[in-house]
Amino acid sequence: MKLARVVGTVVSTVKDENMQGKKILLVRALDASGQVTGEPFVALDSVGAGVGEDVFYARGKEGSFPWHPQPVPSDASIVGILDPFNFPTRESHTGTEGTQK
Amino acid sequence: MKLARVVGTVVSTVKDENMQGKKILLVRALDASGQVTGEPFVALDSVGAGVGEDVFYARGKEGSFPWHPQPVPSDASIVGILDPFNFPTRESHTGTEGTQK
Amino acid sequence: MKLARVVGTVVSTVKDENMQGKKILLVRALDASGQVTGEPFVALDSVGAGVGEDVFYARGKEGSFPWHPQPVPSDASIVGILDPFNFPTRESHTGTEGTQK
Amino acid sequence: MKLARVVGTVVSTVKDENMQGKKILLVRALDASGQVTGEPFVALDSVGAGVGEDVFYARGKEGSFPWHPQPVPSDASIVGILDPFNFPTRESHTGTEGTQK
Amino acid sequence: MKLARVVGTVVSTVKDENMQGKKILLVRALDASGQVTGEPFVALDSVGAGVGEDVFYARGKEGSFPWHPQPVPSDASIVGILDPFNFPTRESHTGTEGTQK
Repeated sequence: MKLARVVGTVVSTVKDENMQGKKILLVRALDASGQVTGEPFVALDSVGAGVGEDVFYARGKEGSFPWHPQPVPSDASIVGILDPFNFPTRESHTGTEGTQK
Repeated sequence: MKLARVVGTVVSTVKDENMQGKKILLVRALDASGQVTGEPFVALDSVGAGVGEDVFYARGKEGSFPWHPQPVPSDASIVGILDPFNFPTRESHTGTEGTQK
Repeated sequence: MKLARVVGTVVSTVKDENMQGKKILLVRALDASGQVTGEPFVALDSVGAGVGEDVFYARGKEGSFPWHPQPVPSDASIVGILDPFNFPTRESHTGTEGTQK
Repeated sequence: MKLARVVGTVVSTVKDENMQGKKILLVRALDASGQVTGEPFVALDSVGAGVGEDVFYARGKEGSFPWHPQPVPSDASIVGILDPFNFPTRESHTGTEGTQK
Repeated sequence: MKLARVVGTVVSTVKDENMQGKKILLVRALDASGQVTGEPFVALDSVGAGVGEDVFYARGKEGSFPWHPQPVPSDASIVGILDPFNFPTRESHTGTEGTQK
């Protein structure tokens, strides 16, 4: 999975029927320092993420697992929201995660 | 999924039988400002997109979901058309999408 | 799918048994002007393509669909041959494809 | 699979239910000399890896095989830990691996 | 599939149980002239390749096909060995492969 920030939403009246009623977000990747980088791309939301939140998303077939067995034609889906104040590469953070299992 | 613009169509008499009768389009990726970028590639159309329209497409196995369970050998398929005047990264757009669910 | 030109064939005596008897081709990607670009890679042929022909190929699981349900371990397979004199990004071409459906 | 080093952990309260109770790690790719390179990304741990260890991970659908048939939406999972003092590209190493089968 | 050269082996005591007893190799991609290029990565061997041999490998789900239906979490597997003296992009080679079918 990769880290990304939600930067917008996508409005599409004409789309695959299995995408009807789902939130389509525009996201950008995050680099090691937590800054957005690269081109924006489209990801389907499965956890209720909103614009401005930092998330991680799965690509490929795994991108449709949250709606399994519905054949949603998504190749990138947001599967988790980063907790605020916990960007993973910060020094103070990596030293205190031993309790997460 | 990624944003792209339809830039042409592909004419192929000799092709996999599961592609017979389907519209094969040539598309190019869109960057954050809505400009085409990178090399054109081939995508199968599942929503009726035409040359000049902005779309988003799914890659990988998901690219064949719109025709499921027919084993269409497509690894990139257009699954939605962007509504006109709604390019997602524009300021005026991202602020008003709260109603899309 | 992506556009490519067949540039050679691959000779392999020792290979996966599901690849026995299939034509293994070496191809290179085509850019917007129809020129080869990037490194050559290996693709399995499912439509009878030959050296010098322009084709489009599917990657990933879709690359094994033409031989389904045989579990051919191919991640890139040629699924269509471009018609001669019809390179998709040429001006004279994109304007006359309305009849392809 | 690719070589990577575990550089941190990811804290996410809101995530896909199939990720609950699993360790989510942040890793960075390793280059030929064993140095970290590129942006960090998120991988699910299936072998008990910890921060500082060198591992190799599988991407794509294979990334969810360790939990099969649970539909874990992971596209990158750590499937092995490199033995210490055995970085594969070191001269003294490649010459002595004939016994591994 | 892509062309690569086997450059080493990987020693991993702690790994996914479906990888136990399989040879794990380190490979590097080959460019058009047959030289290694890019970072080394990890591939599972299914055909008995050894260090120094030129091979082609399949990525993604296809990478686990040689062990099907065992759910081996490999996303890159060597599926064929190039015959010696037959690098595909050499002039003298591409002209004499018409008999391969």
